Amino acid sequence: MLTSPSELSDSFVSRDPDDDSLRLECGVFGIYGMEDASAVTALGLHALQHRGQEACGIASCDGRRFYTERSHGLVSDVFTDADLIKRLQGHASIGHTRYSTAGGSHLRNVQPMFADLDSGGIAIAHNGNLTNFMFLRTKLVAEGAIFQSTSDSEVILHLIARSRSIKIIDRFIDTLRDIEGGYALVAITRKGMIGARDPLGIRPLVIGKLGHAYVLASETCALDMIGAVFVRDVEHGEVVQIDEDGLKSFKPFERKAARPCLFEYVYFARPDSVVNGKSIYEVRKAMGRQLAIEHPADADIVVPVPDSGVPASLGFSEESGLPFELGIIRNHYVGRTFIQPTQNIRDLGVRKKHSPNRVVLEGKKVILIDDSIVRGTTSVKIVRMVRAAGAKEVHLRSASPPILWPDYYGIDMPDRAKLLAAQHSIEEMRQMLECDSLGFLSVDGLYKAMGHDGRNNDQPQYTDHYFTGDYPTRLTDKEIAAEAEASGQQLSLLANTH
Amino acid sequence: MLTSPSELSDSFVSRDPDDDSLRLECGVFGIYGMEDASAVTALGLHALQHRGQEACGIASCDGRRFYTERSHGLVSDVFTDADLIKRLQGHASIGHTRYSTAGGSHLRNVQPMFADLDSGGIAIAHNGNLTNFMFLRTKLVAEGAIFQSTSDSEVILHLIARSRSIKIIDRFIDTLRDIEGGYALVAITRKGMIGARDPLGIRPLVIGKLGHAYVLASETCALDMIGAVFVRDVEHGEVVQIDEDGLKSFKPFERKAARPCLFEYVYFARPDSVVNGKSIYEVRKAMGRQLAIEHPADADIVVPVPDSGVPASLGFSEESGLPFELGIIRNHYVGRTFIQPTQNIRDLGVRKKHSPNRVVLEGKKVILIDDSIVRGTTSVKIVRMVRAAGAKEVHLRSASPPILWPDYYGIDMPDRAKLLAAQHSIEEMRQMLECDSLGFLSVDGLYKAMGHDGRNNDQPQYTDHYFTGDYPTRLTDKEIAAEAEASGQQLSLLANTH
Amino acid sequence: MLTSPSELSDSFVSRDPDDDSLRLECGVFGIYGMEDASAVTALGLHALQHRGQEACGIASCDGRRFYTERSHGLVSDVFTDADLIKRLQGHASIGHTRYSTAGGSHLRNVQPMFADLDSGGIAIAHNGNLTNFMFLRTKLVAEGAIFQSTSDSEVILHLIARSRSIKIIDRFIDTLRDIEGGYALVAITRKGMIGARDPLGIRPLVIGKLGHAYVLASETCALDMIGAVFVRDVEHGEVVQIDEDGLKSFKPFERKAARPCLFEYVYFARPDSVVNGKSIYEVRKAMGRQLAIEHPADADIVVPVPDSGVPASLGFSEESGLPFELGIIRNHYVGRTFIQPTQNIRDLGVRKKHSPNRVVLEGKKVILIDDSIVRGTTSVKIVRMVRAAGAKEVHLRSASPPILWPDYYGIDMPDRAKLLAAQHSIEEMRQMLECDSLGFLSVDGLYKAMGHDGRNNDQPQYTDHYFTGDYPTRLTDKEIAAEAEASGQQLSLLANTH
Amino acid sequence: MLTSPSELSDSFVSRDPDDDSLRLECGVFGIYGMEDASAVTALGLHALQHRGQEACGIASCDGRRFYTERSHGLVSDVFTDADLIKRLQGHASIGHTRYSTAGGSHLRNVQPMFADLDSGGIAIAHNGNLTNFMFLRTKLVAEGAIFQSTSDSEVILHLIARSRSIKIIDRFIDTLRDIEGGYALVAITRKGMIGARDPLGIRPLVIGKLGHAYVLASETCALDMIGAVFVRDVEHGEVVQIDEDGLKSFKPFERKAARPCLFEYVYFARPDSVVNGKSIYEVRKAMGRQLAIEHPADADIVVPVPDSGVPASLGFSEESGLPFELGIIRNHYVGRTFIQPTQNIRDLGVRKKHSPNRVVLEGKKVILIDDSIVRGTTSVKIVRMVRAAGAKEVHLRSASPPILWPDYYGIDMPDRAKLLAAQHSIEEMRQMLECDSLGFLSVDGLYKAMGHDGRNNDQPQYTDHYFTGDYPTRLTDKEIAAEAEASGQQLSLLANTH
Repeated sequence: MLTSPSELSDSFVSRDPDDDSLRLECGVFGIYGMEDASAVTALGLHALQHRGQEACGIASCDGRRFYTERSHGLVSDVFTDADLIKRLQGHASIGHTRYSTAGGSHLRNVQPMFADLDSGGIAIAHNGNLTNFMFLRTKLVAEGAIFQSTSDSEVILHLIARSRSIKIIDRFIDTLRDIEGGYALVAITRKGMIGARDPLGIRPLVIGKLGHAYVLASETCALDMIGAVFVRDVEHGEVVQIDEDGLKSFKPFERKAARPCLFEYVYFARPDSVVNGKSIYEVRKAMGRQLAIEHPADADIVVPVPDSGVPASLGFSEESGLPFELGIIRNHYVGRTFIQPTQNIRDLGVRKKHSPNRVVLEGKKVILIDDSIVRGTTSVKIVRMVRAAGAKEVHLRSASPPILWPDYYGIDMPDRAKLLAAQHSIEEMRQMLECDSLGFLSVDGLYKAMGHDGRNNDQPQYTDHYFTGDYPTRLTDKEIAAEAEASGQQLSLLANTH
Repeated sequence: MLTSPSELSDSFVSRDPDDDSLRLECGVFGIYGMEDASAVTALGLHALQHRGQEACGIASCDGRRFYTERSHGLVSDVFTDADLIKRLQGHASIGHTRYSTAGGSHLRNVQPMFADLDSGGIAIAHNGNLTNFMFLRTKLVAEGAIFQSTSDSEVILHLIARSRSIKIIDRFIDTLRDIEGGYALVAITRKGMIGARDPLGIRPLVIGKLGHAYVLASETCALDMIGAVFVRDVEHGEVVQIDEDGLKSFKPFERKAARPCLFEYVYFARPDSVVNGKSIYEVRKAMGRQLAIEHPADADIVVPVPDSGVPASLGFSEESGLPFELGIIRNHYVGRTFIQPTQNIRDLGVRKKHSPNRVVLEGKKVILIDDSIVRGTTSVKIVRMVRAAGAKEVHLRSASPPILWPDYYGIDMPDRAKLLAAQHSIEEMRQMLECDSLGFLSVDGLYKAMGHDGRNNDQPQYTDHYFTGDYPTRLTDKEIAAEAEASGQQLSLLANTH
Repeated sequence: MLTSPSELSDSFVSRDPDDDSLRLECGVFGIYGMEDASAVTALGLHALQHRGQEACGIASCDGRRFYTERSHGLVSDVFTDADLIKRLQGHASIGHTRYSTAGGSHLRNVQPMFADLDSGGIAIAHNGNLTNFMFLRTKLVAEGAIFQSTSDSEVILHLIARSRSIKIIDRFIDTLRDIEGGYALVAITRKGMIGARDPLGIRPLVIGKLGHAYVLASETCALDMIGAVFVRDVEHGEVVQIDEDGLKSFKPFERKAARPCLFEYVYFARPDSVVNGKSIYEVRKAMGRQLAIEHPADADIVVPVPDSGVPASLGFSEESGLPFELGIIRNHYVGRTFIQPTQNIRDLGVRKKHSPNRVVLEGKKVILIDDSIVRGTTSVKIVRMVRAAGAKEVHLRSASPPILWPDYYGIDMPDRAKLLAAQHSIEEMRQMLECDSLGFLSVDGLYKAMGHDGRNNDQPQYTDHYFTGDYPTRLTDKEIAAEAEASGQQLSLLANTH
Repeated sequence: MLTSPSELSDSFVSRDPDDDSLRLECGVFGIYGMEDASAVTALGLHALQHRGQEACGIASCDGRRFYTERSHGLVSDVFTDADLIKRLQGHASIGHTRYSTAGGSHLRNVQPMFADLDSGGIAIAHNGNLTNFMFLRTKLVAEGAIFQSTSDSEVILHLIARSRSIKIIDRFIDTLRDIEGGYALVAITRKGMIGARDPLGIRPLVIGKLGHAYVLASETCALDMIGAVFVRDVEHGEVVQIDEDGLKSFKPFERKAARPCLFEYVYFARPDSVVNGKSIYEVRKAMGRQLAIEHPADADIVVPVPDSGVPASLGFSEESGLPFELGIIRNHYVGRTFIQPTQNIRDLGVRKKHSPNRVVLEGKKVILIDDSIVRGTTSVKIVRMVRAAGAKEVHLRSASPPILWPDYYGIDMPDRAKLLAAQHSIEEMRQMLECDSLGFLSVDGLYKAMGHDGRNNDQPQYTDHYFTGDYPTRLTDKEIAAEAEASGQQLSLLANTH
């Protein structure tokens, strides 16, 4: 039975209840073998800002000592202080951007995390989610481990610390054998840098070079930002060790076929990134073209929900021959929190994030394209806004299939009960979203846009459980919880013996 | 002879030397006759954030007392505090966003500005620039006026305070007779709200209604944000007084034809705004179409410099039949300041604001469209970036004519010596900007895109001195300075008699 | 009739309702003719911190430009930043410490204040209070002056700005002829420094030298802090002008006898200062000796209310032969604000500022000596605390006479209705303060402690209206208010003519 | 061999090099069984502020979850926010004040510290120092423990977490058997509060009651602050467990005689506290009387170095018959950091902390009394200041014996090489300190002032190694270091096997 992750309360920043976006847990970056490594890391993180906007951190090492700085806020707000960058000394550095974060001064969960091992210090940063986190944490606490956070990274650190292997790379690999889930890891020790990707390559990680220095990053756009050359993806299940002797590759796991996460293509990755060899921008345009084939409409214009709907809209426009128009303008200055208006003001129907471009929409039959529909709360607002601006018809299209199942590999997704498509038929959704027609890209259509003939159901090419329910790994924590429930036990804390 | 504006030194935040954008001095907003007026003002300012991102302020009045809050930062960062909004009590409120701002805690120049008159308090906010500011300030100081800032608004306040008229509206009009330049003003007193636009309507100001409340705003997008209905533009040279009896209009100036500023259409206003009856988005698309006619190119794709180049690119694509592609990705998380990289890092050629979308650009002949070219420092970087990403040819197009003359009506523009087009021929510029061809929209082409047959040189329809040298008003300060120089006097301070 | 000082609301930091201390409006410091003048000023202000703990400011001039920095907080918190001091350039500097201050970011009333005159800039700082402030401000506003604050200093600046004299010293003297009250002023211009003291010398100001540089300060302890030599007091009604030619003295007023404020001796000045030739420490000891003569008691020990009661207690102990004991310990870490306890906790009778020294007090007959008794709210708490700690008897003694009348010269004193001694007989007070006996030093006793035979009622040697009701100057604002009230007018604002 | 405590660098706030004071590591406070426990803890900590001024923290528990807040700054600055106190929910709370602290945002070492055990959470705060800290930490790290700080408290937490006992009190006692040194500990669990004092009672801890609630505190002055009743001292080697069933006492160690630290009496404890049954104020007066007997001088006045020298001066004055005078005034507003003056200003001989009271000192033969002399750097400045103020002779007296040996039980003391008395004879010191005569209280004199006939050298009544070299416990870390040095090993880190 699992204990609660921690009795220490943090005041979490509550998410805006109107916020209907999906969120990734984090981007990671690392560089080894370059002066001012931390400044380069800050720039790399800046390019990965879309993977987490609420906190960030950098750790560095000069071969002798480690330096670390973690804070709430955007990279460009936190790491603007020249002194701060100067304090983060050394030729090796890793960094992390994170979306969810504790309130006030609680920085316990912000990465990178550091530990003194008997063989020397190690700092680690992590993108993804372990599906046996609670199981491992409960076991470690029972053995006397003290946790300072409720983050996966700390479980990984404890496993490394407790490994009986001598070499740090062996300790690292021992640890990877214990954890399950989707992850991309970067770590630095006094001697070098380590990177690792989960056995199925669910979360992305690429290798680049900047002069003689090696770079690891969640996406290629971080390489472009700093002028680094793309070398290759870290392979699924691969561990790379980088030190003054160069890069060594380890493949400690039994080989399986890769299954990268489709949502990186649908939503998360930046359009200018190339993930597992595919251009995000081109793939998204192909989704739009496929969508135009599957769900055409008799309409005047194609309008994207900016910015994520733009490439698919260009593809839809291309395929359908209907003009692409900026019928919705995105406000670039949306603060993360904003005044809590009185009811009086809430009734005004304020549009902080999107504004209608009236002149474009008035009297038109509009095809409205979004990357995905999660709870539908944003979609219905946008449909209403477009209609209020004078659109004659609104045909809503989702460039991804219906989202039916939650994620456990690092995407912050609502419960199944709140996933619109999991609860309603297409026609019900059409009515709820107040649109004239509604169409989702099919699963096979999505695979086609990815360059395949369709989904290989025997051996699916991608992680796609949110659309199909086919989870690619064990879900140990979920299984234990289900068992406990079945056997009538409460998921309560162990009885205390005070 | 003019004295220096102030001997009190502020530490100004120095502008990023790489920053090549034009900047407007400010957006204004006002509302009268509604509960929570300040909260509505915060939302309205939020929609005007693009007109000034470095400081903002709100003043309110409950009919008895005034409340004011001014700060550096974005509206959504400053006015998030529910308590703060609660402190700004009353049914009348004005607000201001501002781009340039003093460093540290120096908030002296941030608006709205307040004064106690013998007839009661007044708060004022202002977008634009007075061309006889120095002349008036020098005169007022000689009469014993004490200035706390170096802003135009304070000159206006002093003139109001010294007017011998009894009614506040008459004091206001007396003041407008003394000032010259381009301006849009909003003010609140204990009894009502006042709005005014300069005799030529250089700077924009619109009237809206939200229920029974009247709204004044720089652009219609602020009305859309709060769900207010657009009523009409404030006319050039019109003063409107709004109080519990409704709106009264005053036209104290001799009637001339309006000459609104073209740069609002070219660059400043938001694409979803309608300025003086014209949709910014449609006008910009028309500029792109006209540009395609005037400067076609044998190319594969049309790529905008995002975001301001997007509508013109859509127009160019439409006219030319060449596909529109997102060949450059804009980073939405650019902080206003960022780490000062070491030379080492500067050499990396870091791209903080724009990233190339390699897959799109590789091997292509690219038409690159920007809204305007000022100093050319950004343009050359973007051309190089596009070429480095593999473009075979780069054909640069400016959706506005060459900028040849500085502005004195509220646009922050470099000296003539730094305006690229003022110093170089088209071919010289082409070489400097490292592009394969270079084309600017013609002045007549711009007037065509605005819906005219061309520029009426006898009575030009717009303020367009930056392209033509034809300044629409007197430039008193400049004339005095020129005279002083001519007569061998230095522009020094008056001799002190201590 | 007087208008309200300003319609602009500030959120004032409300004073702790339990706070029963008197407060001075400010200390001033200036230095001319020394490098790093601002750093010296910071040190000087630090020594004057007891004269105002809530805000402070420094202005400096390098002969060409002025620099200023003002903030809430202690000098040692605000002026710790080396960069800040470096920004305050120049060889001339003035500074100010202030007790009362607006909340939040409202720094409008914090000094020094600066104005650009047509003859050049001037910065001014001021300790004291004008008794015709409202009269002058109303008049100036009617003439079109714009005020940014509600402080006396700004009235003085406006009068200087409007003077028709040519030389700055003449403008300064013109201004002094218009104002009435108690004040010590320091100012800097581009050419030099000016100091002035009111015609009766109510507020103190001394001249010192540090090498070749001249220093002005509220108290000699500021000279000691920086190692400056005491030269002499600025005389009552004297204006001193200091520039590169040295010090010039002006005496623009008709000569009257000086009447310095007695409360400087009783409470405000630091014990190590020498004010108008008298050591504060020695005078206070003499008050204690005189008190022992006037109000002896059959007791075991003499216990001061620390720290201000210590010298008088030493004097009382000396005269009475009773041992001096630290029966009350002062907590040195009292924050200016502290948690608002729940009623639950308020009932605990928390002692944040003073703690009883039980071992000393237990079973003893205690003579408890405080410098003065204002509202009595603190006194009764201390008496109770001493008794609760086991004292058998508590004999309370005030080292100054009963306070009967409010002050209008810069001391923050409650209304007459809240002055304990103004409302109650000695016996009533004794009962209210729950002490076994109560004694106040007599007015003549206080004059004796000051070294006189007693008060010269024909021509009193000191300002002592709080004890005697004998105000030394006109109280114009009060007179106008009284007249208005008498004639049935309300003290309302002038009717607005909108 | 010991590893370095951590490879993670913190930027420590460097101590002012002129700062010559001794510093205690911390004060602790706890309360169980009362609503608003955290607010009471804040008040208790406020009374213990003299035991640590640079950081503070509070943890609380509502029986189910824990809440914690830690920050740099004074208690009255940190815990002023009503919301903050409200967040620290529950009926049980502990708090900590701390002197030494990491720079910037590094709060890793600030207490209380929290851990999730398998049996539930625990928070702990600690005053003192473990003499086998490095030994234990090295061992724990080798076993895979991860440390987040370099504080003793975390070692204690890890030992508790790893104990194989079932009950938390047994785990606690297991841990106490492993640690050595001087300590006072308070802890809370979901069920209750625990307190413990080291086997010799080196560090103090008292028990109080506030209604039905139990209180633990470093000193009785914290009980007085909140109106709690003193019950008794926690005995040396005693562990108390407080829960809803009341207080249980455990004495897990072999009984030895207590040896409380003498420096609590000489310097650290507040004068109104009673430590181990003795009034600090009375003991210090007795030290002064004894000092007058041992080292009389032909002088005019007795002057304390304020504030710590005051009680001894009163005793000296009493015994000698010489008058007590406040010849030195302490500045109450010394900020923790202050501007770094230029050399120019440093040469002024600025006196930020103490000022001479010239009138008192001039022409006098002065006996100057300080509580102790550590490095002598402050003493010589004060002697010079007194002489510069006109004193004819200066006879310096230390109310404690010469400090010859460093401390390892929680007092921040310089190395032996910097302890003035460890390096020089009395006459050498007299010359260095520039005084006319110099006298230290004898060790036996100090024991006499404590109420004994003298030191019992067979079984000393107190911890007094700083005067005698007689350390009361093993010094394991020191022994291992010495051994390592002896055997030629470096105190380096273990070789890494990467």
